[in-house]
Amino acid sequence: MADIKENLEKLASLQRKISAYAHATALLYFDGNTGAPSKTTENRAISSSILSEELYRLQTSDETFALLEELDAHRDELPESERRQVYLILKELRETRCIPMDEYIALQKLLIESDSVWHEAKERSDFAMFLPYLEKIFEAYKKVAGYAAPDKDPYDYWLSRYEDGLNRETCDKFFSRLREGIVPLLARVMEASGGRVKGMEGYYPVSAQEKLSDYLMDVLLLDRGHCGISTTEHPYTINFGSHLDVRITTNYHENDFIPSMFSVIHEGGHALYETNIDDAYTRTAIDSGVSMGIHESQSRFYENIIARSKGFTSFLFPKLREIFPEALKDATEEDFYLACNTVVPGLIRIDADELTYCLHIMVRYELEKRIMAGELKVSELPSEWNRLYKEYLGVDVPDDKHGVLQDSHWANGNIGYFPSYALGSAYGAQLLSVMKKELDVDACTASGRLEPVNAWLKEHIWRHGSLIAPGELLRRACGEEFNPDYYVNYLSEKYSSVYGLK
Amino acid sequence: MADIKENLEKLASLQRKISAYAHATALLYFDGNTGAPSKTTENRAISSSILSEELYRLQTSDETFALLEELDAHRDELPESERRQVYLILKELRETRCIPMDEYIALQKLLIESDSVWHEAKERSDFAMFLPYLEKIFEAYKKVAGYAAPDKDPYDYWLSRYEDGLNRETCDKFFSRLREGIVPLLARVMEASGGRVKGMEGYYPVSAQEKLSDYLMDVLLLDRGHCGISTTEHPYTINFGSHLDVRITTNYHENDFIPSMFSVIHEGGHALYETNIDDAYTRTAIDSGVSMGIHESQSRFYENIIARSKGFTSFLFPKLREIFPEALKDATEEDFYLACNTVVPGLIRIDADELTYCLHIMVRYELEKRIMAGELKVSELPSEWNRLYKEYLGVDVPDDKHGVLQDSHWANGNIGYFPSYALGSAYGAQLLSVMKKELDVDACTASGRLEPVNAWLKEHIWRHGSLIAPGELLRRACGEEFNPDYYVNYLSEKYSSVYGLK
Repeated sequence: MADIKENLEKLASLQRKISAYAHATALLYFDGNTGAPSKTTENRAISSSILSEELYRLQTSDETFALLEELDAHRDELPESERRQVYLILKELRETRCIPMDEYIALQKLLIESDSVWHEAKERSDFAMFLPYLEKIFEAYKKVAGYAAPDKDPYDYWLSRYEDGLNRETCDKFFSRLREGIVPLLARVMEASGGRVKGMEGYYPVSAQEKLSDYLMDVLLLDRGHCGISTTEHPYTINFGSHLDVRITTNYHENDFIPSMFSVIHEGGHALYETNIDDAYTRTAIDSGVSMGIHESQSRFYENIIARSKGFTSFLFPKLREIFPEALKDATEEDFYLACNTVVPGLIRIDADELTYCLHIMVRYELEKRIMAGELKVSELPSEWNRLYKEYLGVDVPDDKHGVLQDSHWANGNIGYFPSYALGSAYGAQLLSVMKKELDVDACTASGRLEPVNAWLKEHIWRHGSLIAPGELLRRACGEEFNPDYYVNYLSEKYSSVYGLK
Repeated sequence: MADIKENLEKLASLQRKISAYAHATALLYFDGNTGAPSKTTENRAISSSILSEELYRLQTSDETFALLEELDAHRDELPESERRQVYLILKELRETRCIPMDEYIALQKLLIESDSVWHEAKERSDFAMFLPYLEKIFEAYKKVAGYAAPDKDPYDYWLSRYEDGLNRETCDKFFSRLREGIVPLLARVMEASGGRVKGMEGYYPVSAQEKLSDYLMDVLLLDRGHCGISTTEHPYTINFGSHLDVRITTNYHENDFIPSMFSVIHEGGHALYETNIDDAYTRTAIDSGVSMGIHESQSRFYENIIARSKGFTSFLFPKLREIFPEALKDATEEDFYLACNTVVPGLIRIDADELTYCLHIMVRYELEKRIMAGELKVSELPSEWNRLYKEYLGVDVPDDKHGVLQDSHWANGNIGYFPSYALGSAYGAQLLSVMKKELDVDACTASGRLEPVNAWLKEHIWRHGSLIAPGELLRRACGEEFNPDYYVNYLSEKYSSVYGLK
C-alpha cells in the first residue's frame, strides 16, 4: 500500500507537469489568434514545438511508462478517479509508443505542411493542390490505426478516438434514422416557407454587441472569475492548464448580431461544462470534458434547445431592443424568433441552421467511411461531395472552396471527428427528454432563469469531467441507451411548430 | 575543431529551449495582466512555477554545466557572439550554483510572499507589516552576494548585476554631480514658475487615444508586424522568446492623454531596441538588451529628449487637435509644450517630471547603499526616506503609502536596480551629444522624421543586443567614458529655455 501511495503522488505530479505544458501551448495558440502581431507566427511555432517535444519526452519516457504500468497492475486497489486517470493516460501512451518514432515525426510534419497547403488550396479553390497531402494523410491514418489497434477496422479506431466506443454500426444506424426523419421534414418545411429567409440585418456596433455577450454569459450563469471572452476569426473554447481558467471567443459582424450571439451561447455551453468540473480533478487527465460528442451535446443544447426556443427568444427580445434601440426599432419578437429558426439548405456547414446541420455531417461521414474502407479514392472526393450535397441538401456546389475544401478537419488529421457534432445534437435532445420529467424546462427558458437546468447538467454531466466514458455517462443520465429517436422527434415538433406544419 | 562545432550546436539547442520556456512564462505573466479572468491567478502561478522549475533543472544540470565549461575552456577559438553567450550563461550559472539549494528555494519563497505582503502593506500604508520581510530580503541579498562574489562589496555585487561593471564609486560620483547640477537648477525653476502647474485635463476617449498610440508607434518607426500594444495597469515592454515578438503596454486615463502618450513613447523606445537586434542572435543569450541602464537610455531618449522637445511637440500638436478636436479646441502649441515640461517636485517617482526624476532615484540609492553597508537599519527606512524627500525635493511625505512603500522593487528583490534608471537618462544625453555631431537631430524631431536617429541608434546600440558589455558599448558609441556632465548640461539648457532662465 505504501508503494501505491507513493506512485499516486508521482502520478499527480506527472499530471501537474503535463497540465503546465498544455497550459503553455494552449496560451501560445490563443495569443496567436487574439492579439499577436502579424509577423510572429514562426517565432510562436518554434516555442510551441520545443515545449511539445519536451512534453512528449516526459510523457513517453520509460520512467513514466513504468509508473503507469505499475499503477495499472494494481488498478483494482486505486480510487475510481485515479483508476480512470491511469487508464486514459496509458491508453494514449500505448498508442503513441506503438507508432515507430520516424513515422510519428513524419506524420506531425505532414500535418503542419498539409494545414498550410490546405489554406492556400481553399483560397484558390484548387483541390488538385491539396490532393497529394490528403492522400498521404488518409494512408498514414490507416497505418497508424493498424499499429494502434490491429484487430479493429481503421475507421472504427478513429471514430472511437473522438467518441470512446463509437463505431460505423452505431453511426450507420444513427445517420440513417436521421436521414429518414430529416429529409422529408425538410421538404415540408421548404414547401411551407417557399425558401423565404428571415434575417435581422442592420447596424449593430461592436461595443453594443460586447454588452450583449456579457449579458448572455450572465444569463448562462458562467462564472466570469474563471471564464473570459475574447475575439477571434473562428469562435472556440479553450482551457488553460485546468478547468479553473477557461476562455471562450466570438467574432462580431457589425451588420448582424445573431451570429455572435449564438457563438457566445454555443461556446458558453462548452465553458459551462469545463468550468463546472469537480475541483478534486484539477490538473489531472480527467480535468476536461470526456468526449467531443458530449461536449457538443452541451454547447448545442444551450445554442439550439435553449436559445432558439420560443420562450427564450421572447425573454431575450426586450433586452435586445434595449441594447440595439436603433437597429431593432421596427422589429418584432416574432421576427426575431423566425430569424433564429430560419431553415435554408446551404453550402457551408458552419453557417447551417439547426435542421440541415446534420445533413452536412452525413456527407462527411459517408465520404470518410468509404475512403477508409478503400471504396472511394481521395481524388474522387470533389465529385462525390458535390453529388451528395445535391442529393441530401438539394444544392449545387459551385466550386471546391464552397465544397470539399471548406473544413480544416481533414487537413489537420481529424478523421472520424465529424460524426460527434451530429451525435452531440442528438445526445442533447435525449438529455432534454429526461430533464423535462424532473424540471419545467420551458419555464426556465421563458424566464431566462437557468439555475435548475444548469444544476441538472452539473449533477449528471459536468462535474464528472472525463471520469466516466461517454456511453456510460449518457446511459446513467438518461436511464437508457443512446436513442436517436429523441432528436428526430424534437426536430419534427420544433420545426412543425415554427413553420405551422400539420 | 569538430568537437567545438558539435558543442556549439548543443549550445544553440540549449538556448532555443531556454527561450521557449522564457516565452511561455512571459506569456503567462502577460496574460495575467491583460485579459485573464479575476480568479485565475493561482492556476497561472502553478503552471508558471512548474515551467520555471523545469527550466531551472535544464539550466543547472551537470550536463549543461559541463558543456559550458568545455566551451569556455576553448573560448579563444569561439566566434565573438558565441563567446559572449557562453560568458553570460556561465556567469549566471556559476552564481546560481554557488547558492545552497535550500537557501535558493527559501529566497524564491520569501520573494513571492513578500510581494503579496507588500501589496497589502502599501494598500494599508503599514510599513511595520512589511518590515520583517524586507529585513529578511536585505539579509538574504547580503548573503547571496557573499556566495557569488566573496571578494566584492555586497552592494557593488548587486549594482553590477543590473549594470555590468557598475559600483558605488561610479554611482557616488554620478549622483553627487547630478545633485550639484539639479538642486540649484530646480530652485531657479521653481522661483520662475512660482510652482504653477500646466495641465491639459479634458475628455479624451480611449478609442481616440488608441488612434494616437498607433500614430506614435508609426512615427517611432516601430515594426508593427513584430510589436503589439495592449493595455495594463502599469505600462511595460516584454519580449516573447526572441526579439521577433515584442509587446508594449500602456494605460489610458480618459481625463488626460499625456500619461499614455509618454508611456507609449517610453515603451516604444524599449521596443525599438529589442526589435532591432541582429537576427543572427535570435533565441540566444544575447537576444535582448544588454542592461537596464542601456535599456532606459533608449526609452528615456525617445520619451524625454525626442518627445518633450520643442520641435517634436510642435510637430505633434496639429495631429493631436485632429484626434481630440473637442478637448483641444482652445489649446495652443505652447500650452502643450509646457504641459509636457512642467516641473513640480512631488512624492511619487513614476509621476515625476524629467528634471526631478533623478532626485527620487538618489533617495533610493542612498538608502539601499547604507542598508547594505550596515549603516542604516531597515526599520529606520521610513524616517530616513521622509527626511531625504524633504532635503532633496522639499516635500513632506504624508504616509508610507506615498513614501517608502510606493515601489515594488525591494519587495521583489530588485536591490541595486534603481540607479540604472538615472544612469539611463544620463547615457541618453551623452549619446545625443555625439549623435548631434553627425546628424541634425533637431530637424528630425521637428519634422517627426526619425529615420536618421533610429539608424544611428541601431548602428551603435540596438543591433548588438547583449553582445557588448554596457560600459564598452557606450565607450564605442561615444568615443569616451561615461560622463554625467552631458546630462547636467542637457537639463540645464533645456529647463533654462522652458522657464526662460538667464
